[in-house]
Amino acid sequence: MNFKDNIKILTIDKPLKLDCGETINNYPIAYETYGNLNKNRNNAILVFHALSGDQFVTGINPITNKSGWWSHAVGPNKAIDTNKFFVICANVMGGCMGSYGPNSIDLKTNKKIGTNFPVITINDMVNAQYNLLDFFNIDKLFSVTGGSMGGMQVLQFVANYPEKVKTAIPIACAASHSAQNIALNELGRQAIMADNNWNKGNYLNTDSSPDKGLAVARMAAHITYLSKKGLQEKFGRKLQERDDLKFGFDADFQIESYLRHQGSAFVDRFDANSYLYITRAMDYFDLIKQYNGNLSEAFKTTKAKFFIISFTSDWLYPTSENKEIVIALNAAGADVGFIEIISDKGHDSFLLDVPEFLKSVKNFLEANL
Amino acid sequence: MNFKDNIKILTIDKPLKLDCGETINNYPIAYETYGNLNKNRNNAILVFHALSGDQFVTGINPITNKSGWWSHAVGPNKAIDTNKFFVICANVMGGCMGSYGPNSIDLKTNKKIGTNFPVITINDMVNAQYNLLDFFNIDKLFSVTGGSMGGMQVLQFVANYPEKVKTAIPIACAASHSAQNIALNELGRQAIMADNNWNKGNYLNTDSSPDKGLAVARMAAHITYLSKKGLQEKFGRKLQERDDLKFGFDADFQIESYLRHQGSAFVDRFDANSYLYITRAMDYFDLIKQYNGNLSEAFKTTKAKFFIISFTSDWLYPTSENKEIVIALNAAGADVGFIEIISDKGHDSFLLDVPEFLKSVKNFLEANL
Repeated sequence: MNFKDNIKILTIDKPLKLDCGETINNYPIAYETYGNLNKNRNNAILVFHALSGDQFVTGINPITNKSGWWSHAVGPNKAIDTNKFFVICANVMGGCMGSYGPNSIDLKTNKKIGTNFPVITINDMVNAQYNLLDFFNIDKLFSVTGGSMGGMQVLQFVANYPEKVKTAIPIACAASHSAQNIALNELGRQAIMADNNWNKGNYLNTDSSPDKGLAVARMAAHITYLSKKGLQEKFGRKLQERDDLKFGFDADFQIESYLRHQGSAFVDRFDANSYLYITRAMDYFDLIKQYNGNLSEAFKTTKAKFFIISFTSDWLYPTSENKEIVIALNAAGADVGFIEIISDKGHDSFLLDVPEFLKSVKNFLEANL
Repeated sequence: MNFKDNIKILTIDKPLKLDCGETINNYPIAYETYGNLNKNRNNAILVFHALSGDQFVTGINPITNKSGWWSHAVGPNKAIDTNKFFVICANVMGGCMGSYGPNSIDLKTNKKIGTNFPVITINDMVNAQYNLLDFFNIDKLFSVTGGSMGGMQVLQFVANYPEKVKTAIPIACAASHSAQNIALNELGRQAIMADNNWNKGNYLNTDSSPDKGLAVARMAAHITYLSKKGLQEKFGRKLQERDDLKFGFDADFQIESYLRHQGSAFVDRFDANSYLYITRAMDYFDLIKQYNGNLSEAFKTTKAKFFIISFTSDWLYPTSENKEIVIALNAAGADVGFIEIISDKGHDSFLLDVPEFLKSVKNFLEANL
C-alpha cells in the first residue's frame, strides 16, 4: 500500500540501543495527533495502541477509510476529550503503518527488511516513542494510556520515565505475559509461518504474501477478544443467510461467516511479519522479571496517579492479572485507583461503547485537570 | 499408514440413511473390546471417543504405540473395571482409524473418498454404532459413556435408543454446541484449508498432505483443552533449554515447544479431512433443536439412570452447559445425578488422572451392578 501522503513521520536521529543488543539510528516513527497542545504544554496524552492498532486513534483512518480504533473514547467531548487534551499516538516500532518495522526499506540493500528486522520489545517501543516528547517540547505528559499491549506500554513507560507522566491509565493488561497468552500468540505465528507464501519472511520483495496464514492468525485472536457469553448472545447458532444446515464446509453459521470476514479484512491492512514481531514483543514482556521479581520497584519513584481498569469477561487479561499491578502500586506507595467494569464484551470491551468504562476514564482525567 | 492387521472391522450390511439425505450400506465400523461379555450379556459398556480419539481406549494403542486415550479410566480394577465390564469402543464414522471416513477407499473409483465423503452428524455416528449391539447380541447396555464429543454421543444414543441403556454417563459436554466452540472448530478447519497441500481435500491420492495446517489446528485445540491456571502452573514463562531469551522466532518458552510438539505428533496419527468432518459433526450437534427447543423431550421415555460430570476449569464445556442437561433430565422426571469435579486441568480433566473424577465414575457404575 502507498500511504506516504497520509502519515506524519518523525525521523529519530538519536541512537537507540535495543534490548537485543543492536543499536538503531535514523529510524522513522509514524504518529498522529488530535486536539491542540495548550500554551503550558501540559495537556498532552500519549496513547499507546494494541497489537493490531495504529496511530489513527479516532476519526476516519485515512489508510483503511474506517473509523479509528478508539473512536468511542477519543474525540470532542468524549472520554478523552480532544477539546481539552492534545492526544498523540505513534505506530509502534515493528508495526506496518509507517514506523520502523519489517516492511521498512533497508537503505543499504534498497529491499524491505523482512525478518532481518531485529526482535524488539515493549521496552524498545516506548523508548522510541519517548522521542515524541522532545519533538513536541513536552516536559511532562498529562497522561499515558492504552489497552492490552497499549497498557503494557503504559506500565513500561512509567517505569522508564517516572518523572514524565502526571497520570497513567493501563487498561485490560498485565505486568507479565501469561503462558496462555504466549500460547495463543505462538498459535498465530505458527499459522503465518505454515503458509508457504511466508517464505521465511522474504515475501515482501515478491508478489505473494501469507494472506491465508495471517487470516487464520487473526481469526484465532479474534475469538479470544470476545467472551463465550458475548459470542453466544450475539451469534448463538444463528445460520448465515440460509434456512437450514447445508451439510458442507461453507459458512453455515453466522459466527463462521463473521470470523472469515475478520480474517480476510485484516490482511488488507496488516503485514504478516509485523504480526510476528509485535506478538513476540508482547510475549517477551515481563516487567516483574525486569525488576528482579518485585514489580513494585518499577513504580518506586514515580509520583504519577494511576487508574487501573479491567473487565469482568476479559479472559485474556483477567481482573486478577490487572489487580497484580494494583497490588504492586500499593506496595510502592503509589496513588492508585482501580475499577472492574461489568461487561460481557470480553477483552474487546476497551475498544467498544461501554458507557461505564468511558465515563470512568473521563472522570479520572478531568478530575486531575 | 497400514494398520489393517491391528484392527477389528464390522461391516454393516444394513442401509443407514444419513441426516444429509444420503443412504450408505456395507460400510466398515472399526471397534475394539476390553474385558469379557458375561453370560447374561448385561455387563457391556459402550464408550464413545472424542474428536481426536479412536477405538483404542486403554492399553497400548497398536497403531501409535502409545497408551490408549482413556488408560487412566479403563482397565482391571480401574474406574471402568474390565474385570467386571465388557467395554466396547468404535472409531466414529468420519474417523481415520478404520471406520467409514474420508480416507476410506471408494470401491467404484478405487480412490480414497476425500471430500466426496458426506457431511455426517453425531446422530449418524451413534446410529452406525448401534449395530454393535446386534453384532454382540446385546439387548441392553449396562452403560454408555464418553467425554466431550463422546458425551454428545451418549446423549444422542439415549435419545435414539431409550430402552437400550441401563445407565448413562455424559462427561464434560453440552446438548448443543456453543458459538465459541463452533468458532474454535471453524478456526481449525480454516487452518487446514489454508494449507496449499490440502488441495480441496484431494491430497489423499497424492504424496503430500496438509500437515502444517493440521498441526496449527491441533495447537489451537490443545490450548482450549487446558485451563489458563493449569497452563500458568505447568509452564508459566519457563524457558526451553536456554538461560535467556534468544530474540528470535524459535521456541524460547516451554509452552511454545510443547505446542509445536503437540502439533507435529498429531499429524502422524490423524487425517486432516477427518478433522474437518468430525468438527463439523460437533458443530451441527443441537439436541435441543432436534426436540423442537425442549431438551427434556429427548429423555421422556428412557428409564436410564444418568450421571452428569463437569469440571470447574473446563471452559469449552463449562459446568453451566452440563447443568442444562441435568435440568432437562429433571424436567423429564429422569433419574439423574450430577457432580462438578474441582480440577485445574481444564477440559482435558476427563482424560487425566483426576482421582475424584475416576472414583465417582467407579462408584456410580458399581452401585448400579
